[in-house]
Amino acid sequence: MSRIDGRQKDELREVKITKDFIKYPEGSVLIEMGETKVICNASVEDRVPPFKKDSGEGWVTAEYSMLPRATLDRNTRDISRLKKNNRSVEIQRLIGRALRSVVDYKALGERTITLDCDVIQADGGTRTASITGAFVALVLACKKLLNDGLIDKMPISSYVAAISVGIVDDEELLDLCYAEDSHAKVDMNVVITDKGEFIEVQGTGEESPFTREQLNKLLDLGEKGVEELIKLQKEVLED
Amino acid sequence: MSRIDGRQKDELREVKITKDFIKYPEGSVLIEMGETKVICNASVEDRVPPFKKDSGEGWVTAEYSMLPRATLDRNTRDISRLKKNNRSVEIQRLIGRALRSVVDYKALGERTITLDCDVIQADGGTRTASITGAFVALVLACKKLLNDGLIDKMPISSYVAAISVGIVDDEELLDLCYAEDSHAKVDMNVVITDKGEFIEVQGTGEESPFTREQLNKLLDLGEKGVEELIKLQKEVLED
Amino acid sequence: MSRIDGRQKDELREVKITKDFIKYPEGSVLIEMGETKVICNASVEDRVPPFKKDSGEGWVTAEYSMLPRATLDRNTRDISRLKKNNRSVEIQRLIGRALRSVVDYKALGERTITLDCDVIQADGGTRTASITGAFVALVLACKKLLNDGLIDKMPISSYVAAISVGIVDDEELLDLCYAEDSHAKVDMNVVITDKGEFIEVQGTGEESPFTREQLNKLLDLGEKGVEELIKLQKEVLED
Amino acid sequence: MSRIDGRQKDELREVKITKDFIKYPEGSVLIEMGETKVICNASVEDRVPPFKKDSGEGWVTAEYSMLPRATLDRNTRDISRLKKNNRSVEIQRLIGRALRSVVDYKALGERTITLDCDVIQADGGTRTASITGAFVALVLACKKLLNDGLIDKMPISSYVAAISVGIVDDEELLDLCYAEDSHAKVDMNVVITDKGEFIEVQGTGEESPFTREQLNKLLDLGEKGVEELIKLQKEVLED
Amino acid sequence: MSRIDGRQKDELREVKITKDFIKYPEGSVLIEMGETKVICNASVEDRVPPFKKDSGEGWVTAEYSMLPRATLDRNTRDISRLKKNNRSVEIQRLIGRALRSVVDYKALGERTITLDCDVIQADGGTRTASITGAFVALVLACKKLLNDGLIDKMPISSYVAAISVGIVDDEELLDLCYAEDSHAKVDMNVVITDKGEFIEVQGTGEESPFTREQLNKLLDLGEKGVEELIKLQKEVLED
Amino acid sequence: MSRIDGRQKDELREVKITKDFIKYPEGSVLIEMGETKVICNASVEDRVPPFKKDSGEGWVTAEYSMLPRATLDRNTRDISRLKKNNRSVEIQRLIGRALRSVVDYKALGERTITLDCDVIQADGGTRTASITGAFVALVLACKKLLNDGLIDKMPISSYVAAISVGIVDDEELLDLCYAEDSHAKVDMNVVITDKGEFIEVQGTGEESPFTREQLNKLLDLGEKGVEELIKLQKEVLED
Repeated sequence: MSRIDGRQKDELREVKITKDFIKYPEGSVLIEMGETKVICNASVEDRVPPFKKDSGEGWVTAEYSMLPRATLDRNTRDISRLKKNNRSVEIQRLIGRALRSVVDYKALGERTITLDCDVIQADGGTRTASITGAFVALVLACKKLLNDGLIDKMPISSYVAAISVGIVDDEELLDLCYAEDSHAKVDMNVVITDKGEFIEVQGTGEESPFTREQLNKLLDLGEKGVEELIKLQKEVLED
Repeated sequence: MSRIDGRQKDELREVKITKDFIKYPEGSVLIEMGETKVICNASVEDRVPPFKKDSGEGWVTAEYSMLPRATLDRNTRDISRLKKNNRSVEIQRLIGRALRSVVDYKALGERTITLDCDVIQADGGTRTASITGAFVALVLACKKLLNDGLIDKMPISSYVAAISVGIVDDEELLDLCYAEDSHAKVDMNVVITDKGEFIEVQGTGEESPFTREQLNKLLDLGEKGVEELIKLQKEVLED
Repeated sequence: MSRIDGRQKDELREVKITKDFIKYPEGSVLIEMGETKVICNASVEDRVPPFKKDSGEGWVTAEYSMLPRATLDRNTRDISRLKKNNRSVEIQRLIGRALRSVVDYKALGERTITLDCDVIQADGGTRTASITGAFVALVLACKKLLNDGLIDKMPISSYVAAISVGIVDDEELLDLCYAEDSHAKVDMNVVITDKGEFIEVQGTGEESPFTREQLNKLLDLGEKGVEELIKLQKEVLED
Repeated sequence: MSRIDGRQKDELREVKITKDFIKYPEGSVLIEMGETKVICNASVEDRVPPFKKDSGEGWVTAEYSMLPRATLDRNTRDISRLKKNNRSVEIQRLIGRALRSVVDYKALGERTITLDCDVIQADGGTRTASITGAFVALVLACKKLLNDGLIDKMPISSYVAAISVGIVDDEELLDLCYAEDSHAKVDMNVVITDKGEFIEVQGTGEESPFTREQLNKLLDLGEKGVEELIKLQKEVLED
Repeated sequence: MSRIDGRQKDELREVKITKDFIKYPEGSVLIEMGETKVICNASVEDRVPPFKKDSGEGWVTAEYSMLPRATLDRNTRDISRLKKNNRSVEIQRLIGRALRSVVDYKALGERTITLDCDVIQADGGTRTASITGAFVALVLACKKLLNDGLIDKMPISSYVAAISVGIVDDEELLDLCYAEDSHAKVDMNVVITDKGEFIEVQGTGEESPFTREQLNKLLDLGEKGVEELIKLQKEVLED
Repeated sequence: MSRIDGRQKDELREVKITKDFIKYPEGSVLIEMGETKVICNASVEDRVPPFKKDSGEGWVTAEYSMLPRATLDRNTRDISRLKKNNRSVEIQRLIGRALRSVVDYKALGERTITLDCDVIQADGGTRTASITGAFVALVLACKKLLNDGLIDKMPISSYVAAISVGIVDDEELLDLCYAEDSHAKVDMNVVITDKGEFIEVQGTGEESPFTREQLNKLLDLGEKGVEELIKLQKEVLED
C-alpha cells in the first residue's frame, strides 16, 4: 500500500522550522509539517501565577488557537461564541504539560513564558507540530534570557518533540495528514524526549478499540518520528 | 511497602455502584470508589446535534462538573467565572469519547443521551469513576428505551470501564487516591472493554518521564483493575 | 379532601437531615423533605467582601444551584448559557438574607461563610429546604470554628427554618410537593425563628390574588411547620 | 416624630405619572415618586416564548435596570461585568409576576409585551414605582392594540399598583425614601389590586425579625398607599 | 427643496440643554436636538487606569448606550446578548477621544471622569449630540472640583461640540434627523473646537463615494453648525 | 527632515501582496507593508444575515484580530477577557464598510463573504493594510465564484484601497510606521477608489486639533498613496 501522498508508512512529511518568524516575541518559530503551519511565539513576562508567588520559581503555559479559515470550512471565532473551543482547551493543556516537563523552574526564576501556538493552516497533526515548534521557541526565549544576563543557566533539561501516529485501513502510519486522520480507527499522539523517554502518550480508539500489540507498533513508529524531529530541532537551534 | 490506606499495589479501593440514585433520569447511578463519589445521570432527548440531523443516527455526549466543595478547598463555580473549568473540559471530552466507542448510533436512532457526571466528593480518580459509572447509567437508559419499545435492540456493543494507574515512589500502583495522586511522578488513565481492548490510554509524566517498560507495567495493572470493575458492572446490571 | 400523597393539610413531608454528608466542608448536611434532596455545604474562608474589609466583621452568603437532572426534564447548565439562572439568583439571595439575619458578624470575625445549596433531586420546596438545611450546616461550621479556638462564642443568635405554604383548590396546604405546587393559586414561603418571629414572608398570587384572611391562614400553617422543623434541627445538632 | 422630609407616617411622596414620555413605544410613562424617577416603556412584539408557541396565548415580561449614575455612586454597567445585577434580576422577576397576574393571555393573543423599567434617578422604592408605572404603560399599549383593531377586548382584568412600607426607628412608615430605607429594620413591598386583593407580599427583616402584629400594621399602610396610587393611575388613564 | 421637517439645508434642529438633570452626578445634562434626547452624566472618581497610575495625571472616558426602546423597534439589551453593541463601542470611543482632546490631565489630577451618554430617544445624530452634551456635563463636573477646592484651575482648554452632516438626494444637509439619515448617500460627523479647529472628521460613503468638493461643502456646513452649538453651550454654562 | 526609516514624506513603505497564502479560503492574501503583516482570508458561505433573507442579495462583512504577540508586548486574547477588543471592533466595522461600498449585492446573490484580517505582525497601519489586502482577497473569492459558474458577473464595481497619513513634528507624512504613529499629533485614514472618490475619511486630532489646510494636505498625500496601492492590486490580480 502506498499512502495518499506517496509516503512510506514510517515517513514524516517534509518538516521546516523557520526561526525568528515574528520580530517581537522573545522566541518565534514557524513550523511547517507538510501543509500544516503553526506560528509558535514565546513571550517572557515578569509575573507568575498566584500559586508560584514568592517561590523563586517560574512557570510555563501555552495557548492554542486556529485562525477561522485554517480549515476547509470557516470556524466561528471563540470570542463570537464567548467560549474557548473545547478541543483547543484540551490541546493547550497538553502543550503546556509537555513543555513544563523539561523546564527547571528554579533556573527560570520568577517569570512566566507563554507559548502561543496559532495554527494558520491545518492539515492534521497540529497539536504535535505545536509542541515540536513551541519547544524551539521556548529554547530561543531562554537563550535570550541567558544572553541578556537575566538567568544564569539554561532552564531546559531535555529536548522534547511530539508526533502523531495512527491506524488507517489496518496499517500503522506515522505523521497522519488530515485525509488520513479523518478516517483513522486509532489516533495516538506521543511526546518523547531526546533520551527516548515518554512525557505523554495519548491513544484513542473512538472508532474501534486497539490491542497491546498495536499499541506497541504505534509507539515504535512514534519513537522513530520524534528522533528525526529532535535531530531537526538541534540543527535549527545550533544554526 | 504498604500503601497509605493499607491496600496492595494492585488493589482497587472499595467500589460501590448504586442504581436508580436520582428518580427522574432515564438512567442514574451513584458510583463510590473509596471516598470518591460521583452521581452519573443519563438523559435521553429527542434531538441530535446538527451534524447528525436526518442521519437516522443518535449521539452520546458527557458533561463533567464538581460541586464547589467536593474538594479540600472551595472552588468557585464555573458560572461565577463565566468559563467552564479547563480540566473539566478535558475530562468530559474523555468521558464522551470513551462511551461513544461502544455505542451503535443506528440502533439508538435519532436521539441524544447526555451523561452528566457530577462529583459530590473527590478523592482521586474522578474521571475514571465517571466513565465506569456513566457506562452503567447509559445501559440503564438504553434498557428503558428498549422496554418502552422505542428501540429494537440494545445499542451497546461492549462493556467499558476505566481506572487510573500511576508511579508513586518508584512503585506502579492501581487506583490512586488523592494523597497518592498528588505526588505521583507518572499518572495514567486507561479505558478498556470487556474484550480486553483499549479505548483510550492517557499517560502523563509531567513530573518525570517514563520508559516503555514502566508503561507496560502500568497497562498490566490497568487491565487487572478494569476486569474487576466490569465484573461489578455486570453484577449491578444483571441484578 | 385527602392530599395527593395522603398527608393532612397541615402535615410536613418526612424530613431527614444527615450531618457530615460530605467530608471536606466545615459544615455539611443532606436535607431530604420527601423526595426533595439538597446538599448544603458550609465553607469558611479567611476573606470578606470589600465592604467588610478591616471592619472586624464577617459575612455570610449563599449559592443555590440544581443538578441538570434534578428535575423531570434536563436543564442546561448555567455555564453553557453563560448566565446564572434567574430563579436561582432570586433563591440564593433569599437564602443569604435568611441566614444573615441570625448571624453576629462581630463574633464571626473577618471571615466569610458560603452556603452552597445544591439540589440533587427537586420535588417542590427546594428553597425552603435549602434554608432549613443550610442553617444546620452553618451551625456545624461555627461549632468547628469554636472548637478550633478561632472564635470565642457562637455567632448565631436564633434558630431559623423555612417552609412553603400555598392554596391549592381553595385549600391552604403546608409543605407543597411539586405536583401540588404546579397548580397552586397562591404560593408562599416563610422564614421564621425559634422565637416565632418572621425573617421573611414572600407570598405570590400570580395565578390569582389572595385576601388578608387567606394570608393569615397561610401564616398560621407556616408557623406550625417551622416549629416542627426547628425541633428537628435541634435534635440533629444536639445529637 | 416627623419624617426626614416632613411627611406623615402614612403619607406618600408626591407622585407624578407622565404619559407618552418616549415617542416610539406602544406605551410609555415617566413615573416620579418624590425624587425616584423611572421610565417605563411597553413594547409589543409578535412573538411568544417557546412554551406559549401555538397556544393562542400571549406573554408579559419585564426588564429592570438602573442608569450607572441613578445612584449616589456610579455603578458599573452590567455589560462591563458580563453579568446582570442580581438585585435587578430579583426585581424584574417581581415586576413580571405582578403584571402577569392581571393579564388575560387569551385576549392578548400570541404576542409578547415587554415592560422596560429604566431607573434614571433612584431615591428608594424603585421596584414598586416600576410596577405602578409599568402597569400604566401596559394599559396604554393594550389600548393601542384595541384601537388598531388587533385585539377585541382589553386583556387587563384589574388595576394593580405597588408600594413599599417599612419599620424605621420602631415606626411603621409608608413609601420609604432612600434615607429611610437605608436604616429600616424591616422592609416590605406589597402589590395590590383595585379590589384590595394581594398579588405579592414580600417582607424582609434581615436587620431584625418582625411580629405578626407589625406585619399587619405594615399591610394596612400598604393598602392605604396602593389605593391612592390606583386612584392616580385611573386619573392618568382616563385623561 | 424643502426638508422633511421644513428646515433650511444649513439649519440645526431646535437644541435644548438642561443642566443638573439628574441630581447625583458631578455634572448632568439632558440634551435635546429635535426629537433626539440624551442624558449625559459626568462622574468623578478617585482612580485612574493602570497606564496613568502614579503619573499625577487624570483620565477621561465615555460610555454610550441606548435604552431598549429609544428606537422604532425594541433592541435587546447588551447584557442579554453578553456583548456590547459594536456600534456603541465605536461611538463611545469617538466621544472619549473628542473630550480628551481638550482636557489638561495634569490640571485634573489623578482622577477619572466618566461620561455616561444614555440615549432615551433616538432620532438621528445621537453620537454628535452626546459629544455636545457630554462636554457641558464635563465642564460642570470640573467646575464642581474647582469650587470644592480639589483642583486649582479648570482643566479644559477649549469648547468642543459636534454635528452630523450628509448628502441626501444630492443635497448637502446639516444635522440629519433619522428619516434623512436613513437614506443619506454620505454621512459625516465633525468635532470642532471654538477656535474652529478640527478634533475629528469621520465621513463615510458606504452607499456612494464622494468627491473632495462635496467633502469641502460638508465641512463648511459642519463648521456653521458647531459654531451655533458652542454659542449655546456658552449660554448654558454661563447661566 | 529625513524619516525614521529614511523614506520621503510622501513615500510608501515596501508593499508586498502574496496571493493564495492559505490554501483553504476562497480568497487568501498576505499583505506586507514594511514590517506590518496581515493575513486576509475571504470565506464564501451560503447564508445571509436575517435582514437580507429572501432578498436575492448578498452581504460582505469583516473580522479583524491580532495575534497576541503581533505587538511589542503580549496582549491577552479576547476570549480570555470574554470581550472583543474595542479597537478591533472599531476597525472591523471600518473594513466592512469600506469593502461593502464597492460590492453589487444583487450580482453576488444570497451569500455572505467574510473577510478575516488577522495581523501576525503590527508596525502601524494595520487597518489600512487590512482593507487593501482584504480587497484583493475579496476579488479572488468573487473570481472563483465566477469561474465555478455560481455567479454571472463580477460583483465588484471599483478597486478600493486605504492608507494612513498623519502629522508628525509638524510634517504631513504618508504611511506611518509605529514609531511615527505613536507620536503623531494627527492621525488619519483614507479609503479611496480607483476613480479617486472617497469611501471613508477618518481624521483624529486627539493630541492636537488640525486646520482645514492641514486636512487638505493630508488628503493629497492619501490620494497619492492609494493610487500606488491600487496599481499594485491590479498587477497582483492580473498576474
